Amino acid sequence: MSQELIQRLTAELETIPLIDPHSHINPHSAASTTLADIMGYHYYTELAHSAGLPKAHIEEPNLDPKEKVARLVPKLAELDNTAQYSWLVEMCQSFFDFQDENVTVDNWESLYDTAAAKMAEPDWEDQVLKKSGLEQVFLTNDFDDPLEGFDTHRYVPCLRTDDLVFHLTKPQTRERFQKATGVEISDAASVVDGIGKLFEHFTKNGARACAISLPPDFSPRQVSDTDANGAIAALVSGDELPADQSESLSCFVFWTLAEKCAEFKLPFDLMIGVNRGVYADGVFQGQDLYDKRTSLINYRALFNAFPQVTFPVSVLAHTSNQELVSYSWIFPNVVTNGHWWYSNIPVYIEHDCRSRLQAVPKTKQIGYYSDMYKLEFGLPKFAMYRRILASALAGDFVIGRGWSESRAAELGQLVLRGNVESIFNVG
Amino acid sequence: MSQELIQRLTAELETIPLIDPHSHINPHSAASTTLADIMGYHYYTELAHSAGLPKAHIEEPNLDPKEKVARLVPKLAELDNTAQYSWLVEMCQSFFDFQDENVTVDNWESLYDTAAAKMAEPDWEDQVLKKSGLEQVFLTNDFDDPLEGFDTHRYVPCLRTDDLVFHLTKPQTRERFQKATGVEISDAASVVDGIGKLFEHFTKNGARACAISLPPDFSPRQVSDTDANGAIAALVSGDELPADQSESLSCFVFWTLAEKCAEFKLPFDLMIGVNRGVYADGVFQGQDLYDKRTSLINYRALFNAFPQVTFPVSVLAHTSNQELVSYSWIFPNVVTNGHWWYSNIPVYIEHDCRSRLQAVPKTKQIGYYSDMYKLEFGLPKFAMYRRILASALAGDFVIGRGWSESRAAELGQLVLRGNVESIFNVG
Amino acid sequence: MSQELIQRLTAELETIPLIDPHSHINPHSAASTTLADIMGYHYYTELAHSAGLPKAHIEEPNLDPKEKVARLVPKLAELDNTAQYSWLVEMCQSFFDFQDENVTVDNWESLYDTAAAKMAEPDWEDQVLKKSGLEQVFLTNDFDDPLEGFDTHRYVPCLRTDDLVFHLTKPQTRERFQKATGVEISDAASVVDGIGKLFEHFTKNGARACAISLPPDFSPRQVSDTDANGAIAALVSGDELPADQSESLSCFVFWTLAEKCAEFKLPFDLMIGVNRGVYADGVFQGQDLYDKRTSLINYRALFNAFPQVTFPVSVLAHTSNQELVSYSWIFPNVVTNGHWWYSNIPVYIEHDCRSRLQAVPKTKQIGYYSDMYKLEFGLPKFAMYRRILASALAGDFVIGRGWSESRAAELGQLVLRGNVESIFNVG
Ligand SMILES: [Zn+2]
Ligand SMILES: [Zn+2]
Ligand SMILES: [Zn+2]
Repeated sequence: MSQELIQRLTAELETIPLIDPHSHINPHSAASTTLADIMGYHYYTELAHSAGLPKAHIEEPNLDPKEKVARLVPKLAELDNTAQYSWLVEMCQSFFDFQDENVTVDNWESLYDTAAAKMAEPDWEDQVLKKSGLEQVFLTNDFDDPLEGFDTHRYVPCLRTDDLVFHLTKPQTRERFQKATGVEISDAASVVDGIGKLFEHFTKNGARACAISLPPDFSPRQVSDTDANGAIAALVSGDELPADQSESLSCFVFWTLAEKCAEFKLPFDLMIGVNRGVYADGVFQGQDLYDKRTSLINYRALFNAFPQVTFPVSVLAHTSNQELVSYSWIFPNVVTNGHWWYSNIPVYIEHDCRSRLQAVPKTKQIGYYSDMYKLEFGLPKFAMYRRILASALAGDFVIGRGWSESRAAELGQLVLRGNVESIFNVG
Repeated sequence: MSQELIQRLTAELETIPLIDPHSHINPHSAASTTLADIMGYHYYTELAHSAGLPKAHIEEPNLDPKEKVARLVPKLAELDNTAQYSWLVEMCQSFFDFQDENVTVDNWESLYDTAAAKMAEPDWEDQVLKKSGLEQVFLTNDFDDPLEGFDTHRYVPCLRTDDLVFHLTKPQTRERFQKATGVEISDAASVVDGIGKLFEHFTKNGARACAISLPPDFSPRQVSDTDANGAIAALVSGDELPADQSESLSCFVFWTLAEKCAEFKLPFDLMIGVNRGVYADGVFQGQDLYDKRTSLINYRALFNAFPQVTFPVSVLAHTSNQELVSYSWIFPNVVTNGHWWYSNIPVYIEHDCRSRLQAVPKTKQIGYYSDMYKLEFGLPKFAMYRRILASALAGDFVIGRGWSESRAAELGQLVLRGNVESIFNVG
Repeated sequence: MSQELIQRLTAELETIPLIDPHSHINPHSAASTTLADIMGYHYYTELAHSAGLPKAHIEEPNLDPKEKVARLVPKLAELDNTAQYSWLVEMCQSFFDFQDENVTVDNWESLYDTAAAKMAEPDWEDQVLKKSGLEQVFLTNDFDDPLEGFDTHRYVPCLRTDDLVFHLTKPQTRERFQKATGVEISDAASVVDGIGKLFEHFTKNGARACAISLPPDFSPRQVSDTDANGAIAALVSGDELPADQSESLSCFVFWTLAEKCAEFKLPFDLMIGVNRGVYADGVFQGQDLYDKRTSLINYRALFNAFPQVTFPVSVLAHTSNQELVSYSWIFPNVVTNGHWWYSNIPVYIEHDCRSRLQAVPKTKQIGYYSDMYKLEFGLPKFAMYRRILASALAGDFVIGRGWSESRAAELGQLVLRGNVESIFNVG
């Protein structure tokens, strides 16, 4: 396949300003202040730990950022093959005038200092956004986030609901709920009422999505008020819920969220397939894995019950991608969303991207999101995706189907940007 | 990889007249009469619905065919990326002198009229078969099909048995059974007897296969006559069968079919993995999906029990393909069969085709079937497959293993045609 | 992608002497003595049987080797498309001056005679190792192997433990255990004691790994001494163990093996996913298949409990590869190991190899092992892998990431050889 063709298409896609539909950016501290913000990201700490660096060296309390980087750098040579490492080098080259091919024990310190100086510039955040071509970035907000003190046009709020669905059994979650909503949980109605207030608060502040990550065995279903009341009564009385009541409560809250998404016209992002804490002694955010034995058939009742809610679905495993393609092909309310986590490496993106482009209506595909914690990651991650997207457009459309390059680029535009606007009502 | 080489191999494969080993053609009305027969096919209605066209607009009772096409055309722009759409354009260009790249609100009406005129030609069916290079087409016949009034050499009967295995619990199925066989179901022996009569009728009329589609959790097993008699007695007495008896009955009928396939020397096509009606409000034939958690290990007892029966196996999910390859590699009576439904898009065919060519004896691979409802679909679907097959032959055999082009083309011939002849005893 | 670049990288990789970290070589008879040793290997017998050759023809008692080959050869034409057949031709061309493209009924006899003459040369074993670039070859030794009479530097012992974990319920296994260890199994402590003696014997004789193959549903867990004693008491008293006690015993022995691997600092090779004897009437070693519904989540407790043990993991199914990548990415003690059995064909190796190179620290990848029963197989199997590895290095690293060829070749060296040395402490 012509490398020149791919490069022309990549260049075309690079002209498109981006809206990033999922990140973990803290809008009060969006960009990095030192290289430790970047290299301390779990991608590098978990890989360095995987390659043998003890967790205690990485997560020592009160560790100086420079010292942290000094400890990580020697391990980089053992993971310089990874896609994640390539993002690091691309960030350093793009943002910090880094000229070398690799970050090594010999060059890291000057890189660290250069980065610190750049990051200290008052408009660093703006520089990063501009250089990355990012216009808007979706957040992941706790349900009790006040959503104050930042530009909600630039940083679009998103109601993250894992705590509500899976941790309402914890007293501190219920306290946070009460504080945020003014509603004390006493029965099913109070939960519905409080969640309604959260949706009011979020939509009033420009939220454009509700979101949740889900374990492989979760299977949402409608729960009767009687069952929900039973579980909540037991909970409020201080009982430890048995597994079946805990599952009922999770399903009740989840179903209520879907109802509120319908009422408030918010898409409901489902990120399906993660088991939390599988590697108990892993580094921060480096403990989660999965069981590939999951199926979207678990969401059959949900997709049927809420035709008016759009569900942008992310799957953790490449082996789940075909189901995502098929369900999006059939269900009007299911759309494909990005390339998540363990599937966010080129070989999987290539296949998953091609299959979506070949079988899902083009208006129903959200191409990519960064999932980033710090703003600098957007650039290399979207760049990786654009190269893969350009390659798919070149191979399957320009060469394979005789499309003009401009028609292929338009398809790319839709997937990269246009659908984010239309599906989330932003832009 | 050399595009010229692929084109030469594709051209070579195009010279091979085809026998299509699985379709849903109605032999009394094989070709289309208007473009609505083509665009009303579930591939387009389900995609248009997926992209937002209300089901009620598509399935309005007594809808005029031209009006139906008029309603679908505006939605095509949202799915012009799909492989399915590319077949539509290829059909229009090949059969109706369509010169444009896309079917649009501006050009569809003249296309519709041209198509209607062509389709009205008395020899349209023959024209389509000739242009498509199709010599014979396998059908999907209800068990009570009289198999009369058509040329069973051209349209090869195939006994489809879903109703017998999964719907014998319905009174109307048992009535149809009695009408077709003269046998009233009263016990296990009567079922066996009646099924024997169906096999006689079908084989006498040139049937070349028995076929069935199966849900992901089906696991065939031999059922004792006692258990079968118990279930049938309950059924005949008017009881609603409990799940375990219903499963026993399904397994009993299925096993009986396998026994009859042995007796009548018919291959038994297994199409594994579909859940019916998952999207309850979907358009006609656009409601079925699947649970990828299925395994051919479910068929262990069957494959061991019937060494004398050939099982051409189709799997719905790409993630099941490796099992199919491995089971065909080991079991003499398991052969790979086509690229079914949700796996029938280029990216999946590419991988599935390559893996079969690399690991399954070449005489045990049925390359492709159209699964078409109307005759015009054969052309673009087989064309897609031939391009992919040619690419696999070029990459893995001519370039990868130094084969001559003619040797590679012979392998292609076997997979495309030769094995259909030998496995189904046709041609 | 430039074929010249791939060829240059392949040539570079060919200069690396190999250590084969898993085989089934009999060190007392490592090389073949006739072509029947090669063509009688299960890859060919099972494929010939799959293509229709009756098992009785292949496995007739006291069959003369030449007659066996004579019976197999005519079937080769039906499987000349397979990767396995390509190895055969490559062996014949490399070792026996075979000039033809195919082994046929016309040329096999002279090939047989040439091969027999070559194999009769006194240094044939050395010739094969030299031509194959193999310096050391890991074995698969029964737990009661005396490990005597061969060069344990060249043929590295490996303690294979399937019998201990899954067949201790058989009296003859317990007898072999007693003979090998001097320990009569009477309770949990005696099992631990005896296993300790096996590890002493093996490590004293240069063993570098403990290994086991595991069925898809196996899920190791720690078993209390009480439960283990209960199961063993029942066993010793002559009872047939019920399924739960049998499972407890398997888990107890397995967990003990992991403890001994920790104590004796041996890596524990896990080969996950095989169901034995699925095709009951298959040829020798051609009866095993699998259920793809397995997950590394089953090994969660194990990986967490033994951080000090390295687990080189092989998975049978391509659909399990992403889990292997992800678990190796997160768990420091999990490393990727080769391309096993049904996944050992180019199309699966390509994807699995690329995904590992893109996401697992490069020091944690064991690229390939031969799994061979006779020494001649090493050459074509490693050659196949090197071509695929070179292609991945060319595409994803030299072209995709701008690496120099020498840097790419270094990565290849690590995966092919360097990691075998460091992970197994050999070389
Ligand atoms: Zn996230
Ligand atoms: Zn069909
Ligand atoms: Zn082995």
